[in-house]
Amino acid sequence: MAAHADDGYRLWLRYDLIKTEAKLARYRQHLQEIVVQGSSPTLKAAKDELKQGLSGLLGNAVNLSAEPSRAFTLVAGTPKSSAFISSLNVSTRLQEAGQEGYLLFTHKTNGRTCTVIAANTDAGVLYGAFHLLRLLQTEQDITSLNLSSAPKTQHRILNHWDNLDRTVERGYSGFSLWDWHKLPEYIDQRYIDYARANASIGINGTVLTNVNANSLVLTEEYLQKVAALANAFRPYGLKVYLTARFSSPLEIGGLKTADPLNPEVQAWWKRKVQEIYRHIPDFGGFLVKANSEGQPGPQNYGRTHADGANMMADALAPMGGIVMWRAFVYDNNVPDDRAKQAYNEFKPLDGTFRKNVLVQVKNGAIDFQPREPFHPLFGAMPRTPLMMEFQITQEYLGQGTHLAYLAPLYKEVLESDTYAKGKGSTVAKVVDGSLHQYTTTGMAGVANIGTDRNWTGHHFGQANWYSFGRLAWDHTLASDQMAQEWLRMTFSNEDAFLQPTRKMMLRSHETVVNYMTPLGLHHIMGWNHHYGPGPWIKDKPRADWTSVYYHRATEKGIGFDRTKTGSNAVAQYFAPVEKLFSSLKNCPEKYLLWFHHLPWDYKVSSGRILWDELCYRYAEGVNEVRDMQQTWEQQQNHVDPERFKHVQTFLKIQEKEARWWRDACLLYFQTFSKRPIPAGLEKPAHDLEYYQRIEPKFAPGI
Amino acid sequence: MAAHADDGYRLWLRYDLIKTEAKLARYRQHLQEIVVQGSSPTLKAAKDELKQGLSGLLGNAVNLSAEPSRAFTLVAGTPKSSAFISSLNVSTRLQEAGQEGYLLFTHKTNGRTCTVIAANTDAGVLYGAFHLLRLLQTEQDITSLNLSSAPKTQHRILNHWDNLDRTVERGYSGFSLWDWHKLPEYIDQRYIDYARANASIGINGTVLTNVNANSLVLTEEYLQKVAALANAFRPYGLKVYLTARFSSPLEIGGLKTADPLNPEVQAWWKRKVQEIYRHIPDFGGFLVKANSEGQPGPQNYGRTHADGANMMADALAPMGGIVMWRAFVYDNNVPDDRAKQAYNEFKPLDGTFRKNVLVQVKNGAIDFQPREPFHPLFGAMPRTPLMMEFQITQEYLGQGTHLAYLAPLYKEVLESDTYAKGKGSTVAKVVDGSLHQYTTTGMAGVANIGTDRNWTGHHFGQANWYSFGRLAWDHTLASDQMAQEWLRMTFSNEDAFLQPTRKMMLRSHETVVNYMTPLGLHHIMGWNHHYGPGPWIKDKPRADWTSVYYHRATEKGIGFDRTKTGSNAVAQYFAPVEKLFSSLKNCPEKYLLWFHHLPWDYKVSSGRILWDELCYRYAEGVNEVRDMQQTWEQQQNHVDPERFKHVQTFLKIQEKEARWWRDACLLYFQTFSKRPIPAGLEKPAHDLEYYQRIEPKFAPGI
Repeated sequence: MAAHADDGYRLWLRYDLIKTEAKLARYRQHLQEIVVQGSSPTLKAAKDELKQGLSGLLGNAVNLSAEPSRAFTLVAGTPKSSAFISSLNVSTRLQEAGQEGYLLFTHKTNGRTCTVIAANTDAGVLYGAFHLLRLLQTEQDITSLNLSSAPKTQHRILNHWDNLDRTVERGYSGFSLWDWHKLPEYIDQRYIDYARANASIGINGTVLTNVNANSLVLTEEYLQKVAALANAFRPYGLKVYLTARFSSPLEIGGLKTADPLNPEVQAWWKRKVQEIYRHIPDFGGFLVKANSEGQPGPQNYGRTHADGANMMADALAPMGGIVMWRAFVYDNNVPDDRAKQAYNEFKPLDGTFRKNVLVQVKNGAIDFQPREPFHPLFGAMPRTPLMMEFQITQEYLGQGTHLAYLAPLYKEVLESDTYAKGKGSTVAKVVDGSLHQYTTTGMAGVANIGTDRNWTGHHFGQANWYSFGRLAWDHTLASDQMAQEWLRMTFSNEDAFLQPTRKMMLRSHETVVNYMTPLGLHHIMGWNHHYGPGPWIKDKPRADWTSVYYHRATEKGIGFDRTKTGSNAVAQYFAPVEKLFSSLKNCPEKYLLWFHHLPWDYKVSSGRILWDELCYRYAEGVNEVRDMQQTWEQQQNHVDPERFKHVQTFLKIQEKEARWWRDACLLYFQTFSKRPIPAGLEKPAHDLEYYQRIEPKFAPGI
Repeated sequence: MAAHADDGYRLWLRYDLIKTEAKLARYRQHLQEIVVQGSSPTLKAAKDELKQGLSGLLGNAVNLSAEPSRAFTLVAGTPKSSAFISSLNVSTRLQEAGQEGYLLFTHKTNGRTCTVIAANTDAGVLYGAFHLLRLLQTEQDITSLNLSSAPKTQHRILNHWDNLDRTVERGYSGFSLWDWHKLPEYIDQRYIDYARANASIGINGTVLTNVNANSLVLTEEYLQKVAALANAFRPYGLKVYLTARFSSPLEIGGLKTADPLNPEVQAWWKRKVQEIYRHIPDFGGFLVKANSEGQPGPQNYGRTHADGANMMADALAPMGGIVMWRAFVYDNNVPDDRAKQAYNEFKPLDGTFRKNVLVQVKNGAIDFQPREPFHPLFGAMPRTPLMMEFQITQEYLGQGTHLAYLAPLYKEVLESDTYAKGKGSTVAKVVDGSLHQYTTTGMAGVANIGTDRNWTGHHFGQANWYSFGRLAWDHTLASDQMAQEWLRMTFSNEDAFLQPTRKMMLRSHETVVNYMTPLGLHHIMGWNHHYGPGPWIKDKPRADWTSVYYHRATEKGIGFDRTKTGSNAVAQYFAPVEKLFSSLKNCPEKYLLWFHHLPWDYKVSSGRILWDELCYRYAEGVNEVRDMQQTWEQQQNHVDPERFKHVQTFLKIQEKEARWWRDACLLYFQTFSKRPIPAGLEKPAHDLEYYQRIEPKFAPGI
């Protein structure tokens, strides 16, 4: 119970004294006082953050001043709030910054040097303030700044799959932050710190509730609670959204139908939306999962997804709200290829959605697998804004205890070329609206945040929250840069620490792919909880909920043929991509078994046969975890004991579970390949039955 | 994310610099170095605690030394571990201290002054260390100490009603501390701090799992996890216990029966116990809820509670383990009076239990009501050690958000006179074994601890954990003393703070009784979740799970006649108590409607008629909460902003809910009394139907 300064609660917003003396001296010189003119709650938040941040980083109480009065001053504000900012004549440059961007520059005049944060809005000022703090935290030069920044997507949103009983679907870091029972009265300090953390990386919206929705949250009783959260978040530019259960009119409205074309239903939603806005004047809108995995939807009434989305959109439009309609759908009938479903259902609807509807598409066509090729819908709906849905929580990537830095996964998807409008039509350009001139854009991340003291369970899980936010703001950022920023802010600016740990982070996603699903394998995890390996899963209510449906291993070979000779899912991509993935020769090896069913003795690029390559990849995954362990062991002097031990323990769990994955998968696939594990590789510690008997109980994440 | 020094995580173990300068100087003079001779994990824990505690309290790093080397030294150890202690010739005095007690005295010799903590065991040293720290925290004189202390009960145990999925039955402070999924590898710092907190108040055992038990915890997989917790707790003298589901032989043993007289079943439990002890060599034993509320038990096989308890006891005896067999039972048939059941089932079994069985009896005969007369079993089983079971979690006392200091409740029960062996045969003397010469003794408290940052949800909930532990060690402590200790250690030593807040605490239990169940009313709470009022609850699966069964309100009157003219439950008490409670004239008014059914116009001691008195009591309850609010408002300068606001908010919720209780109960009972609420009292804000329609959703605590 000593001061738990290093329990990870502060995330990357650690404002400890800067260690490099020369930098510290320079910062102290340049930031002698803080002038934030204006008094809105958001400007107050910016002011408080700057005061708290600078005081900690510089180790002295930096004074607030109403006007610049020192030789070196920090000034922040908007032309409206601040006469000083207004006097700088930066209105042209500010135009580019838009509603949320900012300028950050050094201004010298009359022998006075001002570090200026200027923006069109108070939220922009806040974002700029966090940028300046980040520069200090990462020990960058601030003596001659000339920066501007504006977000590339409008809606940068966390999706919480949080239930009203505080369990979290696919949540591995404790329970839901939202203590519904004590709301609206009790405002946990954590709500504020949550909003601060989001603001610091540019996240401007949060969907509080699970996509498997409960209509209760739309009742008066709960709206009061939602409003209390919205009030707590508002100063930080964070808007609140809710999931809207499609059958709400029946469940809480007393209607006999939820048919979206029924006027009573339409009127009910209009009234409901008005009620919501009475409580939360800046309510963001609805996220909807409909006709998917048992959730009700418009198809229950013979209507289309567009009918359903448009009904809600019409109710929200007058208030400025949006609908985010998920493309992750399941037909009642098991399709020949699950991967084709979203495209088949949604592409024909392009152009039929209201303006305030975004279709939210998962990064891949299956379901957040360790690796998936990009979703073929991207590029295929030029008249419908498509939002990206990434998963930050590691449902299929080691859940609570595996170190997997996900920026490389996000980047791999964003940089994929759809060829929708020829070469260079990347997924990122679809999502940021530039390819199809979407007027609304967005990026969503399924949150990995819970009540665990360090927010994300694994300390390195924080890096995924961080990089999701940073990428939603600017998808051009490199994984390495974000890793370094996060490491510097969260742990240390020391080079001896940074170099090995960033390498470890950058490699970590590939490592997990290797010991879970190398070479394009997918969906071979344990049943239901998705924890651990389960390539033998079969005979479930739906074929496309099993593993054998996806890996298709037989004595002859393994892999899902999605070319013309198979499901032909590949035809959903634009021609150059289709050609690439269809070609055995050109198909990137990382997607090999995603698109091709191949014999066990097929020769891969290493010169090995497929079976041997699988064995080597699985082995490599385990070995790389051991490398990570070694890397971390060497950081003991750079990291506080509590976090050092925490990560060390989790890496130990990861190594154990990587072996579990490797051994279970290889033993299982070996029953088909009938080949030995190559000499020199570790042999499984147990027999296949042992692994098949493992039945995790009470695995977190429901 | 500023330092959350004041989020309550540190509980009463705050080691901030002592504010009173004169005291600080004295302490610094007397505690110049720490000498703890010996190297066991427990002595190391004592040493660490003293070093950390003194360094914080005295504001300077107090040095550890191998031998006394200064004019003023703190020495702690056992005669075995420490040559210095051994040389003091205190063996006679140490005999009284027993296995866990300690001496704390000032020893002057050769111009050197030593503050000495001496004990027979390392655990005793640790307890003594916490005592010394408490003296400093509460700013007591330590210049001339001559104290000894030994626990009055042997087994001082927390019962966690924690499920393996981390939900907590009747838990209102988040979720279970035990992160089973990450055990055995990950040892949360919180486990250590939990053990420290318990050691600081003398708690030496913890039952990790819910009495509504899951047999999985007895499997190899979970025993490894339990062992990891036991290892973490062991240095702090905290033993681990588990709940044993009676049907485990069927569920995890592959047997066809759990009949306690079946040799295979007996052999299974013996093997299982041996397996447990292989993992946890100092395992404490089992807590069992059998044949109660649907739990399996020996009666399923036509056997008695003694048969069941003895079978487990025989398995545990060779390893030194105990069985705590709960007397909280429900017959399959609804009895004429639920209050009589435990007595009827257990008294005839007196003398038939093995030596290592304790029967664990709730403080009252119903179920942890806001107030109950003491359980008639106390005193009635002279040949069977009876353990007290108190509830620390506030299932019926406002749950997570009401300030109710429970020491007065505990004391009221402990000081009740059973007259088992004539006047002075208090419940405390039954429990501490002195009345019937029990060779084993114990006291259990159902924990109020969860993942909430401040452990107990309400900051003042910490005081209930604290005072339970202190009373289990020494039941003669006064409520006021424990309140003051806790307030001083947790908040402030300032008199201006202490006087009003201790008054508030001491009155708070009575306040809750007033707005919930005055004058002996009981069991009129909401269905299932037990949250909020529900005097109208009827027509449930069992009559004795309803409210109308207990209050028996009609147009003629209200109350449960437990005298000869009614259920005659009162006959379960010894004659003088029976006489007292039976007599309308002498029956304490606080138990009036517990024992008597009375007409609405019955005159009570205030001169009012019963209906009016009910109205006044309910009104008084609400008014007293408002007094508490006023008291707290005046403490703003004495308490840090975070905890001040937290308590302020919770008091606001309490006031709202007190009104809810008052209005709902009065409106409901008014339908029978047909009398007006006396003039001058606040009228209910809504009609009865409004209150009956309130249906709490997702109330915590399952």
